Amino acid sequence: MAEKRTSRDENYAKWYNELVIKADLAEFSGVRGCMVIKPYGFAIWEKMQAELDRMFKETGHQNAYFPLFIPKSYFSKEASHVDGFAKECAVVTHYRLKNDPNGKGVIVDEDAKLEEELVVRPTSETIIWDTYKNWIQSYRDLPILVNQWANVVRWEMRTRLFLRTAEFLWQEGHTAHATKDEAVQESKQMLEIYGEFAENFMAMPVLKGTKTEEERFAGALETYCIEALMQDGKALQAGTSHFLGQNFAKAFDVKYATKEGKEEYVWATSWGVSTRLMGALIMTHSDDQGLVLPPKLAPFQVVIVPIYRKPEQLEAIREKAKEIMAELRGLGVSVKFDDRDTHKPGWKFNEYELKGVPVRLGIGPRDLENGTVEVARRDTLEKDVLDLTGIAVKVKNLLSQIQDNLYQKALTFREEKTFKADSWEEFEEMIEKGGFVHAHWDGTSETEVKIKEMTKATIRCIPLNNTLEEGKCILTGKPSSQRVVFARAY
Amino acid sequence: MAEKRTSRDENYAKWYNELVIKADLAEFSGVRGCMVIKPYGFAIWEKMQAELDRMFKETGHQNAYFPLFIPKSYFSKEASHVDGFAKECAVVTHYRLKNDPNGKGVIVDEDAKLEEELVVRPTSETIIWDTYKNWIQSYRDLPILVNQWANVVRWEMRTRLFLRTAEFLWQEGHTAHATKDEAVQESKQMLEIYGEFAENFMAMPVLKGTKTEEERFAGALETYCIEALMQDGKALQAGTSHFLGQNFAKAFDVKYATKEGKEEYVWATSWGVSTRLMGALIMTHSDDQGLVLPPKLAPFQVVIVPIYRKPEQLEAIREKAKEIMAELRGLGVSVKFDDRDTHKPGWKFNEYELKGVPVRLGIGPRDLENGTVEVARRDTLEKDVLDLTGIAVKVKNLLSQIQDNLYQKALTFREEKTFKADSWEEFEEMIEKGGFVHAHWDGTSETEVKIKEMTKATIRCIPLNNTLEEGKCILTGKPSSQRVVFARAY
Repeated sequence: MAEKRTSRDENYAKWYNELVIKADLAEFSGVRGCMVIKPYGFAIWEKMQAELDRMFKETGHQNAYFPLFIPKSYFSKEASHVDGFAKECAVVTHYRLKNDPNGKGVIVDEDAKLEEELVVRPTSETIIWDTYKNWIQSYRDLPILVNQWANVVRWEMRTRLFLRTAEFLWQEGHTAHATKDEAVQESKQMLEIYGEFAENFMAMPVLKGTKTEEERFAGALETYCIEALMQDGKALQAGTSHFLGQNFAKAFDVKYATKEGKEEYVWATSWGVSTRLMGALIMTHSDDQGLVLPPKLAPFQVVIVPIYRKPEQLEAIREKAKEIMAELRGLGVSVKFDDRDTHKPGWKFNEYELKGVPVRLGIGPRDLENGTVEVARRDTLEKDVLDLTGIAVKVKNLLSQIQDNLYQKALTFREEKTFKADSWEEFEEMIEKGGFVHAHWDGTSETEVKIKEMTKATIRCIPLNNTLEEGKCILTGKPSSQRVVFARAY
Repeated sequence: MAEKRTSRDENYAKWYNELVIKADLAEFSGVRGCMVIKPYGFAIWEKMQAELDRMFKETGHQNAYFPLFIPKSYFSKEASHVDGFAKECAVVTHYRLKNDPNGKGVIVDEDAKLEEELVVRPTSETIIWDTYKNWIQSYRDLPILVNQWANVVRWEMRTRLFLRTAEFLWQEGHTAHATKDEAVQESKQMLEIYGEFAENFMAMPVLKGTKTEEERFAGALETYCIEALMQDGKALQAGTSHFLGQNFAKAFDVKYATKEGKEEYVWATSWGVSTRLMGALIMTHSDDQGLVLPPKLAPFQVVIVPIYRKPEQLEAIREKAKEIMAELRGLGVSVKFDDRDTHKPGWKFNEYELKGVPVRLGIGPRDLENGTVEVARRDTLEKDVLDLTGIAVKVKNLLSQIQDNLYQKALTFREEKTFKADSWEEFEEMIEKGGFVHAHWDGTSETEVKIKEMTKATIRCIPLNNTLEEGKCILTGKPSSQRVVFARAY
């Protein structure tokens, strides 16, 4: 741990990259833009998956699996979708390699060219609606409430670990409904679930809103989103839920017979969150000492580090640690005892700070004598010596406090970084400072694009339940009935 | 359910395909050779995953994620691996599509050709060992015990749902060790875990053994396998665990410093099971009425079907069903109450038989009066009227009986289909009948290949702890010291 690490103030982007690598979360691979998610990082993702999967199932969704490959022609079937998605994609053109006749490894076998190229899925609406067509005949077959956990590929030119990678992991829900109203309700429900997950598990406050037409998903009639604010004042879109209307049903000819025997097109939604959430989690809470994890998503919530000179001291500490671990596990707290003799306690303290373990317990011979333990919390870096009596309950309560504190801290930060701009000058200045800027906008894509070109700020969302308020567009001065939220974004 | 279904005796392959589709497990997609795993099928796969994942973690393994794509050149680094794996693969050659200038959808953008083609992983040894190289410096970094759950692609010409598909889901463990002994122990341990999973959860007896050189994994020094016998007398390889020696460490130059400061190559294993297990599960237990599921892997273990004419009868049954469900859930039994008014009880009975739900409870007004319930078990198709008192415990015990019975039935079947051949004539006859044939073999690949050409039978395994027994090769008459297991296989 001797090497100097970059601080957030020095260089936020560099701090982030260093942290992701040093905390053993992920790294780039030998394949351009593709990451390796390391065991510690993957364990956090598994925690996220478990909670989300539970929430999806509790609301009646089932998991399924659809092909990785999509025939090229499928993309052309939904006009706006093809523009948004079929471009920067990995394209499979051949299905065989052969030995190089010159003896230099393998080469593509030109005789094994596919009749139709296959696109590695950037998102699965097209292949799924091609499948749903055979699943849906009558109203009895609806709704279909399906989710899949999968890898997807979008050929990004500029990549960043977790935030933007050529391949990433995500879940994509794809539902089919008999009525428009039901589909709209579904897309709103999933937005609520994403919001609840972000706030209650990631301890990350989010704005909920709708996207402007310009920022909408390719093929959607409405895109609902959750937007979070990172510590550098940039926004991050953390999840989206789309009301797709009948666009995909029409593109893939998916109709159902109503109770009355009429034929109607099916209504659709899709919704997803990805390993990008890992980036959001890291950037929301971490500090110059390393990762800070909310207890609900930490691979292990407590680590016990023995402080000893002699083997018999270690044995005595181990006995006490076993008792404490049994009590903690009984309360549903995950705990690790680090008795490695290859590293000193100080090294371990740094290691667990870097890895964001919420609570660290240090026990030495003096503690055993006094019936005490040193309790260090990662969020505030505070240390305290506590009586061992009832320590498990105290730690469990502390974890709950840490979870709340992280959320409150992030919320306070966001509030301090939320501004109202009433003139172009104010707007430019605030955008430059970073944060969410509530401002009036004339509702046109033209103005939105101009503002983006001038300031790099985009409209992150039109908040749900927004207060209506007469005003003038900050750029054009044209009338506006509500403020929208601008920010520079990841 | 009126349509006639194919029986196993009529046409086993057709029976299997129909069953997979009718029981809503999987279907082929619009992409050649790629399947869609439907929600009911995926729920079984999730149960399998959960148990395996638990067993992996209990033995110290962690999950991680490695890239979908592998640079073509990586395959050439391990000489035997390239022959085995880099051939029938999906090859990505381009990273962009563009609008067809003729206005007909999208075409591949020839300007976006990759410098080096990427292969969609058929297995991940190469990309993982390229990564491990950076993770391993000294003995302190070992062992690495990592698993990943992933999709892989092998361009198969003849595909069958679950058994052989171009894309399939699997887990692949990849471990790195300081010593040969430790690596061998690891590969044996994982074989034991696969065996335990197959027998205790899938209720599928398996032979454990090693593969011959001819049938070994490309790049392995030893391949351990579990082999099951299907109802048509064909064998199915259900899982493999490979001791890879130092082959991949040498190919990717992965060395570690020993405690004594010497440099040594790292020892490796890899091991995997796939959605092929779904095929094995289906073919081991199912019958002409449909799927038969072992209770430990059933998405729901019990279904309650109300039998009623009048709405008030349904309400009375619902109250009783609620009590029963609460009791069952309290005992850890999963249960569904099917109160759909769109289908008659008889239709539902057929449906749940087809879907292999282990226990069905039927409750009608007469049952309420008498304090009874009709209990039907799927494995034997037996029905019984039982007293409602203590019904949850009775059902739980019944589930346990069903689990045991399925295993015993499959074991008896396998034993009846296991033969010893001592002459070529006997061998040919037994192979034709189907089943495992224990016979002497002279130990050469030449003989093995000849036998395969003549009979389509392969050596499934050399059983672990095989009895040594002097004998003569059934084909060449050359001396042999043990019998090996032949069968035709999936």
